[in-house]
Amino acid sequence: MSELSVNHLLGIKNLQEKDIQLIFETADHFKEVINRPIKKVPSLRDITIANLFFENSTRTKLSFELAEKRLSADVINFSAGQSSVKKGETLIDTVNNILSMKVDMVVMRHPNPGASVFLSKHVTANIINAGDGAHEHPTQALLDSYSIRERLGDVAGKNVVIVGDILHSRVALSNIYALKLQGANVMVCGPKTLLPKHIDKLGVKVETNLLKALQWCDVANMLRVQNERMEISYFPSTREYTQQFGVNKTLLESLDKEITIMHPGPINRGVEITSDVADSKQAIILDQVQNGVAIRMAVIYLLASKIKQ
Amino acid sequence: MSELSVNHLLGIKNLQEKDIQLIFETADHFKEVINRPIKKVPSLRDITIANLFFENSTRTKLSFELAEKRLSADVINFSAGQSSVKKGETLIDTVNNILSMKVDMVVMRHPNPGASVFLSKHVTANIINAGDGAHEHPTQALLDSYSIRERLGDVAGKNVVIVGDILHSRVALSNIYALKLQGANVMVCGPKTLLPKHIDKLGVKVETNLLKALQWCDVANMLRVQNERMEISYFPSTREYTQQFGVNKTLLESLDKEITIMHPGPINRGVEITSDVADSKQAIILDQVQNGVAIRMAVIYLLASKIKQ
Amino acid sequence: MSELSVNHLLGIKNLQEKDIQLIFETADHFKEVINRPIKKVPSLRDITIANLFFENSTRTKLSFELAEKRLSADVINFSAGQSSVKKGETLIDTVNNILSMKVDMVVMRHPNPGASVFLSKHVTANIINAGDGAHEHPTQALLDSYSIRERLGDVAGKNVVIVGDILHSRVALSNIYALKLQGANVMVCGPKTLLPKHIDKLGVKVETNLLKALQWCDVANMLRVQNERMEISYFPSTREYTQQFGVNKTLLESLDKEITIMHPGPINRGVEITSDVADSKQAIILDQVQNGVAIRMAVIYLLASKIKQ
Repeated sequence: MSELSVNHLLGIKNLQEKDIQLIFETADHFKEVINRPIKKVPSLRDITIANLFFENSTRTKLSFELAEKRLSADVINFSAGQSSVKKGETLIDTVNNILSMKVDMVVMRHPNPGASVFLSKHVTANIINAGDGAHEHPTQALLDSYSIRERLGDVAGKNVVIVGDILHSRVALSNIYALKLQGANVMVCGPKTLLPKHIDKLGVKVETNLLKALQWCDVANMLRVQNERMEISYFPSTREYTQQFGVNKTLLESLDKEITIMHPGPINRGVEITSDVADSKQAIILDQVQNGVAIRMAVIYLLASKIKQ
Repeated sequence: MSELSVNHLLGIKNLQEKDIQLIFETADHFKEVINRPIKKVPSLRDITIANLFFENSTRTKLSFELAEKRLSADVINFSAGQSSVKKGETLIDTVNNILSMKVDMVVMRHPNPGASVFLSKHVTANIINAGDGAHEHPTQALLDSYSIRERLGDVAGKNVVIVGDILHSRVALSNIYALKLQGANVMVCGPKTLLPKHIDKLGVKVETNLLKALQWCDVANMLRVQNERMEISYFPSTREYTQQFGVNKTLLESLDKEITIMHPGPINRGVEITSDVADSKQAIILDQVQNGVAIRMAVIYLLASKIKQ
Repeated sequence: MSELSVNHLLGIKNLQEKDIQLIFETADHFKEVINRPIKKVPSLRDITIANLFFENSTRTKLSFELAEKRLSADVINFSAGQSSVKKGETLIDTVNNILSMKVDMVVMRHPNPGASVFLSKHVTANIINAGDGAHEHPTQALLDSYSIRERLGDVAGKNVVIVGDILHSRVALSNIYALKLQGANVMVCGPKTLLPKHIDKLGVKVETNLLKALQWCDVANMLRVQNERMEISYFPSTREYTQQFGVNKTLLESLDKEITIMHPGPINRGVEITSDVADSKQAIILDQVQNGVAIRMAVIYLLASKIKQ
């Protein structure tokens, strides 16, 4: 049987192309499962998974929790607010304590880039990175590519533009790795101050004119504007951002083709995309959410099969 | 087989009398179940329910969660504090995202009146209103009537007075609808400033003298005093309120009959009722709590049977 | 079949020596269970347990929750922050409401000493004290003794020193009761201002010189320094504390024997113990965590068998 080349999902950077294909094929199966009346399989009744969220999260946490429950795993949730983290305990101590309670897998979101890599070197459990600072968010990139594959048949050869604050986005970085690995052509588009200096070294095109970017692409992945960051001096105002980098129906209709619109959510309606775009048939935003559960089931299932018996 | 006339439980106002009877008969069955050693039935193993609480709640949330678990549904909890709601996402986006994860039913508490009605028009899932601002709290009214029926044999023809801040109470409004629908005679009693102006249009009697109200009634439903509101100018002080609208043992013994005392909880002991009343045999306050689980099991079960297969 | 002499686990003070042995023998069985691939038993499918935490907790809450889930009990969680407690409801009302929903057992942590004793007198459910102020934390003491027994074969006759802020520690008090009951020799060691005045009445030795304490003992249980308390005048500074009562490798190597190091967690690395000690083979800190789940499964299982059928 095929298996992943890794014991943890720390980032897309650590994956091989065949890992992604294996995850997608496994997700195909689980997507069929969650569309049945009984959306559960007994696969992981012997697995205990801890969700450790050191940062707020709605959809990612719910999505992982549903994925785990639909695999029949035992789930324990741990949020930083209620925790010893406040008492100054180190991350390793916190996690080692949890693992001592015989937990097999850890899903972790943490504000520090590299937190899950660090953890994977110091504890014995499969780690899934659910977002580490501005570094990676691998399951988001996997569900994004999976949704492109579902809509367009394939990822290879497609032109994908990621629009927004590339500099601070773990979604952007993981998507770049994932799309390149699968042979897509990738462009980033955003205000100059929000593009990383050496972004071209990742083999992506750079564009600061949204219209040109949209004319080039098959798929536009519109990142969420982080309003709370817009107060920093080198950021544009929300109004400026929307004028230059927001997508609306008129703009889309000016193109000579129908591109696919993605968004990792939650949407700022009227900022990065207008409602008529978000709710149109070109948008696959809710498909992304649904596919997120199937992708996470696949990742958890495949990593669980690597637990030493 | 009988089924509800509605696909959602948004308010009592939307129900027919036969819906209430069907819910009560179903609750009779589940009340028997939860008094068995094994309090669970496998009825809803194929259903995923999301509890969305945009307002704090203890007993209502626990009661729904227990009802769901005892029906063997999969349960996910979502509280506003940990959520994207803070990030400015719209209610519809939040809920659509959750539904995209293949959630079948939503139990929602929200501070805005009409929030669940609004939601039911925009999403495809059964909605249960667990309290929307000062509007409705239908499961509370159902469990209240069910508890009257249990104690007195029937609701029809009984004289029921609701005492307290009628103006701001979703419990009062839902109870008025439910009691009237079942043929009870309803009176409201409270300080003039806390009675809605056109309350008589709902077909209820109005009384500002508690003794007269108690002399008239078979059942007194004592609403909780919202201490946090007592600072507003048109409210009486807590001390004034207790003197005029608080029930104590002496007052009850001055009546020539034994009336039934209800309270939706949590009780302010010594404010709206004294401890000797709250803990007396006339009070059915803890029966209400117990019946709440059975009523919620019934509502969830009946709505689930309406999910399009 | 053997059974506990008590219906609640309120404190070690209420236990007999044979209760402790029964809990240990039962924990032996469950420790074997949680080391199997499938870590669950269906023993308590008919039991609903409410975890009521009126104080923050990481490991104790997770440990109880895992213990409950591995016994297949239905679990509901209740934290003070989300609760009616803020609305001024009394503890008895809160708990009676929860019990009316047909909850069989309550695990409670509360800031007030005696809260669980008080509760046990007023409600009908088995109560497990998960820490009540500076009073008792019985499951911690049980898992501590169980871990000593596991490492050293027996508790009776062993010399055990508890080091730290004895005055404010529920872990210290419960450990003293448990160790004395099992025939261990117990010493407390700490700054004079942090030792209770009449501690000798509990039959324990008192020592303010850490080196002498370590020379005497087989086991040193290093309490956590509560940094938040160090600002009070009669407390030493953290630096002073570490110099006089912190354990480091050099100190341990100066002894002519290898003592066992325990810590209830979370560790302040570099304060009460250094990392080289915490991570050494002499330390059984993570064994304590693992044993905590088995001990709690045993306590819950044994109390459940006393529920009136």
